[in-house]
Amino acid sequence: MPSTTSVVNKDLLDERSKCTFDREEFSVWWVGGKDRLDEKRNREHFCMNQPEFGDKIPLHYLSHKELYEETIRKATTIFAKSKEMVQKKHGYNAGNFVKFLDVLTGDGFMHQANPLAVHFSMFVPGIMGHGNAEQQERWLDRALNCKILGTYVQTELGHGTFLRGLETTATFDEETDEIVINSPRLSAYKWWPGGLGLTANHCIVMAQLYSKGRCHGVNPFMVQIRDEETHMPLAGIEIGEIGNKLGYNGVNNGFLGFKNFRIPRSNMLMKNAKLLRDGTYQKPISSVLNYGTMVFTRVLIVLDTSQMLARAATIAVRYSCVRRQSVIDPNKPEVQVIDHQTQQGKLLPQLAKAIALKLSADNLWKMYEATQVDLETGNTDRLPELHAVSCCLKAVSTGDAAAGVEVCRLACGGHGYLSSTNFLNLYGSATAAVTYEGENTVLYLQTARYLVKVWNQALKGQQLMPTVRYLEQYATKPVKRFAWSDSTPVIIEAFQAVTANRLRLANEHIQQRVKAGRTPQEATNETGLELVRLAEIHCRGFILQSAYAAIEQACQTASQPLGEVLREICRLVVYDEALRITGDLLMFTTMSDPDLVELQRKYEVSLGAIRPNAVSIVDAFDYPDFILGSTLGAYDGNVYERLFEDAMKSPLNQEPVNRTFELYLKPLMRGKL
Amino acid sequence: MPSTTSVVNKDLLDERSKCTFDREEFSVWWVGGKDRLDEKRNREHFCMNQPEFGDKIPLHYLSHKELYEETIRKATTIFAKSKEMVQKKHGYNAGNFVKFLDVLTGDGFMHQANPLAVHFSMFVPGIMGHGNAEQQERWLDRALNCKILGTYVQTELGHGTFLRGLETTATFDEETDEIVINSPRLSAYKWWPGGLGLTANHCIVMAQLYSKGRCHGVNPFMVQIRDEETHMPLAGIEIGEIGNKLGYNGVNNGFLGFKNFRIPRSNMLMKNAKLLRDGTYQKPISSVLNYGTMVFTRVLIVLDTSQMLARAATIAVRYSCVRRQSVIDPNKPEVQVIDHQTQQGKLLPQLAKAIALKLSADNLWKMYEATQVDLETGNTDRLPELHAVSCCLKAVSTGDAAAGVEVCRLACGGHGYLSSTNFLNLYGSATAAVTYEGENTVLYLQTARYLVKVWNQALKGQQLMPTVRYLEQYATKPVKRFAWSDSTPVIIEAFQAVTANRLRLANEHIQQRVKAGRTPQEATNETGLELVRLAEIHCRGFILQSAYAAIEQACQTASQPLGEVLREICRLVVYDEALRITGDLLMFTTMSDPDLVELQRKYEVSLGAIRPNAVSIVDAFDYPDFILGSTLGAYDGNVYERLFEDAMKSPLNQEPVNRTFELYLKPLMRGKL
Repeated sequence: MPSTTSVVNKDLLDERSKCTFDREEFSVWWVGGKDRLDEKRNREHFCMNQPEFGDKIPLHYLSHKELYEETIRKATTIFAKSKEMVQKKHGYNAGNFVKFLDVLTGDGFMHQANPLAVHFSMFVPGIMGHGNAEQQERWLDRALNCKILGTYVQTELGHGTFLRGLETTATFDEETDEIVINSPRLSAYKWWPGGLGLTANHCIVMAQLYSKGRCHGVNPFMVQIRDEETHMPLAGIEIGEIGNKLGYNGVNNGFLGFKNFRIPRSNMLMKNAKLLRDGTYQKPISSVLNYGTMVFTRVLIVLDTSQMLARAATIAVRYSCVRRQSVIDPNKPEVQVIDHQTQQGKLLPQLAKAIALKLSADNLWKMYEATQVDLETGNTDRLPELHAVSCCLKAVSTGDAAAGVEVCRLACGGHGYLSSTNFLNLYGSATAAVTYEGENTVLYLQTARYLVKVWNQALKGQQLMPTVRYLEQYATKPVKRFAWSDSTPVIIEAFQAVTANRLRLANEHIQQRVKAGRTPQEATNETGLELVRLAEIHCRGFILQSAYAAIEQACQTASQPLGEVLREICRLVVYDEALRITGDLLMFTTMSDPDLVELQRKYEVSLGAIRPNAVSIVDAFDYPDFILGSTLGAYDGNVYERLFEDAMKSPLNQEPVNRTFELYLKPLMRGKL
Repeated sequence: MPSTTSVVNKDLLDERSKCTFDREEFSVWWVGGKDRLDEKRNREHFCMNQPEFGDKIPLHYLSHKELYEETIRKATTIFAKSKEMVQKKHGYNAGNFVKFLDVLTGDGFMHQANPLAVHFSMFVPGIMGHGNAEQQERWLDRALNCKILGTYVQTELGHGTFLRGLETTATFDEETDEIVINSPRLSAYKWWPGGLGLTANHCIVMAQLYSKGRCHGVNPFMVQIRDEETHMPLAGIEIGEIGNKLGYNGVNNGFLGFKNFRIPRSNMLMKNAKLLRDGTYQKPISSVLNYGTMVFTRVLIVLDTSQMLARAATIAVRYSCVRRQSVIDPNKPEVQVIDHQTQQGKLLPQLAKAIALKLSADNLWKMYEATQVDLETGNTDRLPELHAVSCCLKAVSTGDAAAGVEVCRLACGGHGYLSSTNFLNLYGSATAAVTYEGENTVLYLQTARYLVKVWNQALKGQQLMPTVRYLEQYATKPVKRFAWSDSTPVIIEAFQAVTANRLRLANEHIQQRVKAGRTPQEATNETGLELVRLAEIHCRGFILQSAYAAIEQACQTASQPLGEVLREICRLVVYDEALRITGDLLMFTTMSDPDLVELQRKYEVSLGAIRPNAVSIVDAFDYPDFILGSTLGAYDGNVYERLFEDAMKSPLNQEPVNRTFELYLKPLMRGKL
């Protein structure tokens, strides 16, 4: 439970006393079981009690350089102490380290993130995924124990999304049995990898392999970039960090240029593809397994961003119950701002959305696990479907989380603008995810391409995979408006009806454009806006369906009061989403004008129903104060005291008169400037 | 024209060669005449050529404290040099200084703003607006020439929007003829005023006046807070800065607490209200004139935010023509990203929206001037209408500009996340405006309240003011669907039809709630979401109408090519807005399903029509590079070189190995941490 021992704000006490359900039961459900909740709290307890894990001065007062240095201090001590703790309790090895990533990297309380994060999340797994047995022998243990510090180097100044366009070359020199790496022009410089700037001394570099005069596409190479003793960049390496960013300034993103830099052939990572002594290139047997890693990463992103949104909602809901502003009745005192209906309309859907996103990540995870089982029997049938779901779900969750964090921030008025609220860090993290690991628009288009493909299969009467099976009835039956009603499952089906109808139209538009002389690719590009939109609505249907199914399942064992709260949350998120596509509902379903008015009314009733439990729901998310890191969001609700306390830590407030008075202001006032 | 002399990127040269109109003619129209354009360029030229006006190190690398100090250096030299320039050319005095505010405060290129800005924009005007002749004599000239440095102190920790709730007290002590100022509790501390932290030595404080045991509401007081010689805070004053923020970190926002701080009675600003020697309070004759200042400020905000959006669009459009990524046809090279339809759908509406917002600010300004003429004859009839328009227009423009800046940033992919692109500063400025000078939701509700009032007048057959006159026909005639067609003026009328119908519904819902036993205030609160939405749609109709009228007027004298471009821009923004309210259009107009499909098609055609002129339109906005301040947006399009150049200015890149290697990384690698 939250850590503070101070007196709790009276309005928050009142809110908590109104709670209709068992908060602990909610927390157990939210975290995924009693054991997990205990384990989570144990780890938080461990971290909370390491004084070195805290910041001496809030990070937002530091310069770019100071922030890096403070982050390195924290990151190294967090790894060292956490590893020791993990080692004692569970043993620490290549087989289990992923389970402890959060505590090893200070995830959740390193608010500008960690320059060693990519070392653990991509460099070590990269050795395991790309290195053969001998290579793992050489590097894995050293990496796992931070004897070498690594990162994963792919993106270049000129290319991110379009991997085939990467320009870094790795040319095999048969004579010396070496590979020569070059950055042929500025746009070929590596740019963005986390930890690359000043931290890592090794990296896995993705580069176009040339041998015997032929290009064999992008392959992974293990490259040492700095001396292990002096940390000086090696000859032929130009390296540095890429500068300040909107967020994630602890990550130490870097650039890297190569000039005839030589590595032994044995440094090409050859678990999959191989380069033989004579320069012969052997392709990997299957690229299908790469899907797995991508989907795995995306599940993590959806989980992460749902957590960011849940934290933002926690901060804003608590503050909105403490803050009193404006009267509703002129003869009564100022109300808690959450009692303004407009404030409920901002915050409560974010809280509900965070839950829905988390539940759809759980669902995607189940699909992923089922697919892994299939793969063991050589069955790759569900991979394209899994990939399509993971693309659009990553896009919706990151987009919605980033937008939702800002809704929460703005709902806190002027004070939300202060860095001490932690909203800027949450936004910086959530909005970064819109772009990394596949830019959202590109991902929507990938899902859309899959949908167009299966739509045309359905038109031919073929059977479709589970998440798109609903399309079959629309493809094969004559066009008819979907029968609207505002029960939760019917609204979710309406999302499917809208997707199917939009897909029919988009498909027709592509074909019309082809008939008019466009290439299929041009026609698809010119239908891009429609395609993005329908992929998004398909995904929203998936999210609502996932949330609905998970909540109905939970209700089978949950206590009645908790079940009621969860179902209300589900209704709210369904109404909220439906009210965002009213044009589609009016066009493709039998929804009438009065139905729409009634839907709005039900939405408002749902807001009112959740309102009394709002604080208790965010309490049940169970974020300790040191993870929220927010002056406005702390458990005790002493918001003004905390704002003041943070301001007093500003280096500018350590002296009554700043030196610029004598230097500039006084001369200005005396007309001497 | 832009300042750089470097070689221009070839893709940008190609774009510019495709321009169908006269860029200079566009610029003259955009800025409001040849003279204004010349004057603007002269001022820019002056600023550009002052080496002291630049930053030594990009601000994003500095600490909070360093940034303040660098900002004071710049702000003081900018004022001193600019004042000298203005003095020579035009004379400098209370009558004309407002005209030179931009150059005096470095507006547009102080990317984290200026701690003296509030001095000029609110403290000096505050003396003129609140001080009587004798008080102006005492302070005006000193303030105008920065002999004293001031700010305007209103907001408190506990109160912003709801002014009546301010808690600072100013109690008249009849015995000593003094006023005693107190902050009775922490929430009464002043919090937010710009320049208050460490810069100002005087301020106008808004506080609740008590005399003879009665409260006379909020009144303005001139208060010296720091010694003019030493800059030390005076006894009874607790002062400091409020800490780091999302943006505007140069503004030096401060806090201020009073403990029995005494000022002479003559320091109450008494142009309007008066406090006599015996403690008698004389109310101001009319509070109506305050509306004028508020509307004036809001016109400026709408203009400002439209400029922020135009700058963001400039950066993103140029970058999208330079950046090549992904293929459309697999047998052709990678395309400019702007050739992806989805990219056009992101950027071109922002460019068009910036223009529409600017034109509606012009329209509001005309209404304001007309009202000022009315006021001179004692006619206050149009004030409530003017106020209602200014509220919702401020809300829409700040909300859309902030969202639009982020659309532009995200359209630049990963690189948009770098501080050197200047997107974060633009967002920081635009999103701050969502909250300051009236929080947007509160403003929408004010407009809505006006609309409900006039709707009920219209129901009684009364005649309404011009901007809401359209409501009359809907109030008095039986409900009928508006006859849809997709010509520009008809779509604009459709926005009015939607507003009127939503207003009818909301009004009915309020009355139903009253009948069900709610107080009118509760009923209004419970209809808040509907009210906000209809005020917004009303405003969007006003914006589209303003843009349409202004562009049609411009076309009367513009060359044919320019006229065609402007009309296309108008169509784009109208289609874009209409596609955002399709539910309303289907519900309240005769729009059919095929009409909606056709509207989407027309929107896409419009995007394609603007695409070839996109770079030339943003060029014609005529922002020099030093104002854009963006590695991605410069006129020459050398984006990778500029990104690299900014990174090389990072203090972390000034040495090959950071000291944290020896301190932390090496011990970690050796297992000694």
